Amino acid sequence: MSILVVGSVALDSLETPFGKVTDVVGGSAVHFSASASLFAPVQVVGVVGDDFPSEKLAFLKEREVDLSGVETVSGESFRWSGRYTHDLSSPETLETRLGVFADFHPRIPPAFQSPELLFLGNIDPRLQLEVLEQVGDAGLVTCDTMNYWIDGSRNEFMELLGRVDVLMANDGEIRQLTGKTDLVTASRWVQERGPSHVVVKKGEHGAVLFHDEEIFFVPGYPLKDLNDPTGAGDSFAGGFLGFLHAAGDFSAESLRCALVFGSALGSFAVEDFGVSRLARLGREEVAHRVREFRQMTQFEIN
Amino acid sequence: MSILVVGSVALDSLETPFGKVTDVVGGSAVHFSASASLFAPVQVVGVVGDDFPSEKLAFLKEREVDLSGVETVSGESFRWSGRYTHDLSSPETLETRLGVFADFHPRIPPAFQSPELLFLGNIDPRLQLEVLEQVGDAGLVTCDTMNYWIDGSRNEFMELLGRVDVLMANDGEIRQLTGKTDLVTASRWVQERGPSHVVVKKGEHGAVLFHDEEIFFVPGYPLKDLNDPTGAGDSFAGGFLGFLHAAGDFSAESLRCALVFGSALGSFAVEDFGVSRLARLGREEVAHRVREFRQMTQFEIN
Repeated sequence: MSILVVGSVALDSLETPFGKVTDVVGGSAVHFSASASLFAPVQVVGVVGDDFPSEKLAFLKEREVDLSGVETVSGESFRWSGRYTHDLSSPETLETRLGVFADFHPRIPPAFQSPELLFLGNIDPRLQLEVLEQVGDAGLVTCDTMNYWIDGSRNEFMELLGRVDVLMANDGEIRQLTGKTDLVTASRWVQERGPSHVVVKKGEHGAVLFHDEEIFFVPGYPLKDLNDPTGAGDSFAGGFLGFLHAAGDFSAESLRCALVFGSALGSFAVEDFGVSRLARLGREEVAHRVREFRQMTQFEIN
Repeated sequence: MSILVVGSVALDSLETPFGKVTDVVGGSAVHFSASASLFAPVQVVGVVGDDFPSEKLAFLKEREVDLSGVETVSGESFRWSGRYTHDLSSPETLETRLGVFADFHPRIPPAFQSPELLFLGNIDPRLQLEVLEQVGDAGLVTCDTMNYWIDGSRNEFMELLGRVDVLMANDGEIRQLTGKTDLVTASRWVQERGPSHVVVKKGEHGAVLFHDEEIFFVPGYPLKDLNDPTGAGDSFAGGFLGFLHAAGDFSAESLRCALVFGSALGSFAVEDFGVSRLARLGREEVAHRVREFRQMTQFEIN
């Protein structure tokens, strides 16, 4: 059994205060896979143009990522370019060229149609719904989204929301979706509309999991080397679902640990440009960082 | 042995989206005492005018707070009025009338000169230094400050910094003081200049303790009833030092628990206007909230 991810496979050009890169491999499905593949077999569905440098995804194949669901279509690959100023929390988009992604409709190969875990990366909610039509029973369905879809495709997004188990979004998106400023009330609002679990990503301030009546916090890892925030959220999702696959259950305790693993993977992802850091990351480094998270959060009351 | 606090005793007029109050008792020494007195005997040094409604501090006397160091001087009490808009993180000051506080010089009564713990509330660093001149050996000296002193009295503040054990400030103040945006680097900067411990308050995002090489995070309590943020930081300090007094040592484990107790007290303080919530708070409620903090942060790795 595997994790299935459907999302973008892209070429990113990025500028941050710490450097500049052109046409590095990125996109939600790639960041997610680079992270989740440390813990679990991953199947990817996406699309690239015939200009895509497939050899740059070789590191994913070495980690048992099945890329047979990534179609190659005649035309240009999806390209995004953005610039981060000293506020690294949100980029300025310089250019988006959808290319072959403009006509993308996910086709889930038969061998991918019964995933244990499904991650619907941040794409049009109509496409996320098309994935659900093709997938039978997934043990746990997680979706990401962004402000653009929350405002522009609200009806479709709300329909999707009724069919997912975990909504994963950042604090601004959750507030925009619900119209509630306080995250407890906002998450209850979401939970009443479908997802049993809500994961709120707060960037440098960490992440929160709302499950049933419980709340669980993980702080942001205190990074000294933050070079490129692109893909942090997808890497977080990969760590979260990768851990759950390895744990083999969705108990409250496993979900808490998953949030810590997600936070660890997100923190590694931003240490270097694109997926460079994740490509050279090992499980022992992850385990070390998770122990650091424990040291930074645990206390005993007499 | 007691905790000694030196700070303002004031009359606050506040407006928040949730209500409006006029001339309620406040000031750093009052918020601190209302919080710390749940755990330890507290001695207060400050000044009020002859218009001060001393009966409103009766709840402190019932909790063994020694107010004999609060001088009454002919004239008006210190008054502050402020307004919070929907961003509850920082108020707009409408008026500050120093009154008798303008000529305040702390006089520490002989019986107060050997405190186990000393809290230097947010006042002019010159006055904070005057306190240190009069106090012999305090087991642990903690100081608060604000942007006004960091910019306006930098030399005096740096002299003070060399003589305290714990600097307690919010994230913006720490960044302003050090010129470092990343809190790890900023805290190391502070630790090299005196304090062995740095406590950074991040409002709704919680608090961080830097001690030796270690870092400890506590999340912000997910409040649904936030009515008045005034005094949250001083109530936090009261919970922090109150717990340390009760613990009887300054071990790493006690400091971590102290940060949780500080966070709990800060979260209670903002539930109602002025010190109303702290005045009717009991230790069992605090213990319950501390257990909630545990539930919201603890996890096990197999």
